[in-house]
Amino acid sequence: MPRFALRIEYQGADFSGWQRQRDLPTVQGALEAALARLEPDVPSIAAAGRTDAGVHALAQVAQVDLTRDWAPFRLAEALNFHLKPAPVAVLAAARAPDGWHARFSATERRYLFRVLARRAPAVLEAGLVWQVRAPLDAPAMQAGADCLIGRHDFTTFRAAECQADSPVKTLGELRVEEIPRHDGVEYRFHVRARSFLHNQVRSFVGTLERVGAGAWRPEDVAAALEARDRAACGPVAPPHGLYLAGVSYPEDPFRAS
Amino acid sequence: MPRFALRIEYQGADFSGWQRQRDLPTVQGALEAALARLEPDVPSIAAAGRTDAGVHALAQVAQVDLTRDWAPFRLAEALNFHLKPAPVAVLAAARAPDGWHARFSATERRYLFRVLARRAPAVLEAGLVWQVRAPLDAPAMQAGADCLIGRHDFTTFRAAECQADSPVKTLGELRVEEIPRHDGVEYRFHVRARSFLHNQVRSFVGTLERVGAGAWRPEDVAAALEARDRAACGPVAPPHGLYLAGVSYPEDPFRAS
Repeated sequence: MPRFALRIEYQGADFSGWQRQRDLPTVQGALEAALARLEPDVPSIAAAGRTDAGVHALAQVAQVDLTRDWAPFRLAEALNFHLKPAPVAVLAAARAPDGWHARFSATERRYLFRVLARRAPAVLEAGLVWQVRAPLDAPAMQAGADCLIGRHDFTTFRAAECQADSPVKTLGELRVEEIPRHDGVEYRFHVRARSFLHNQVRSFVGTLERVGAGAWRPEDVAAALEARDRAACGPVAPPHGLYLAGVSYPEDPFRAS
Repeated sequence: MPRFALRIEYQGADFSGWQRQRDLPTVQGALEAALARLEPDVPSIAAAGRTDAGVHALAQVAQVDLTRDWAPFRLAEALNFHLKPAPVAVLAAARAPDGWHARFSATERRYLFRVLARRAPAVLEAGLVWQVRAPLDAPAMQAGADCLIGRHDFTTFRAAECQADSPVKTLGELRVEEIPRHDGVEYRFHVRARSFLHNQVRSFVGTLERVGAGAWRPEDVAAALEARDRAACGPVAPPHGLYLAGVSYPEDPFRAS
């Protein structure tokens, strides 16, 4: 069976996350329903990042094994046709290299978290940013973030229900970008690692927001990390500011095709 | 009665335009309902641009005369409280200078029109961009746009129901910005004039899209303008890509306060 890679965008608000659940709308469920319109008995699909309820994707990557050797462009078009009106779109499809796996071959996941500081409710970007009411101290947040870069035991920033074997991960990037806007200030957190623990990015951002608001000092982030204790974490940021922004592979199926 | 200026953002999809209409949801109606919660018998409000059904605003400007001398910050906060859940937000309030009028004192209106070229449906920006399926020729669109700059009889680009006294207007800017994205190409049309005819921006963009798609040559835009005939216009672009982006005043109430 030929394996295909799919690059997928979705609006997470209406979904109980990526992973298929009985009787709940999920992104995997929406995609598998669309695939079932193309071929009977399509095996279960897998994705690079199993995003939580409410989390969006700019470029999730999934794999599917089909019996027909679909032209990738036609596969994407057919899936988009059958996905409507679900807020899921296949941006690209490609034949996968031999042995490629959407989840296990991934060497890097990138996330974006958007925070908008302004008083008035964000009506044009409702559900697409985490809104806070006052500007944050971006250099202080970056100083706190810098404590987290590198290989650490991230127990503090890991949800209780996390199923990863080890809390030790290597954080490649946690960069705070400050963007002045006509209506306030936006803060974009750019986060990059080979893999993440459950709720790790939202735990980082919720904690760094406390630093930005002046309630925590940057060095409190280092202390929280060293505590290796979930109770030392700041509040977990809400899901609707978070986007799975990209996935890297040594052999990128989309570049090759 | 002290006069206040309000800078307003709204998502236009749910509204039958700015102007109050009996039995239809309008932005003016939503704001007047919120004002009625603050003071009885508030006179009718006026805005710089009476946007059409479905058109958004990043920074509409309206005026309201109130009996109490509200602290501007508290006025904005109270209005935002009473506006919920309508997708309208007061970004700022200010005391207006003597003789200032939101509509008649305005010396420039700025509009933004967003076009996104990509195949897959825009699920994250649904309703916020006009989506086309193939990339457009931005230099050709700019060449067509350049024919429109300056003082002209814009009868061709004016809706039949336009109530302006004269079809002669002076277009200050019509700039096409091309923004490469991970998922396609976005084209932003930046349009600036003292005042506009009804549907003028959407008529410009719909016509220029034809140029970008190769169906019209840039010089066909000049011929359409010279025809002074509504029938010579290209298709009118849909409202949901259009944003009222700003209004200029010789005495800016927001700068003063």
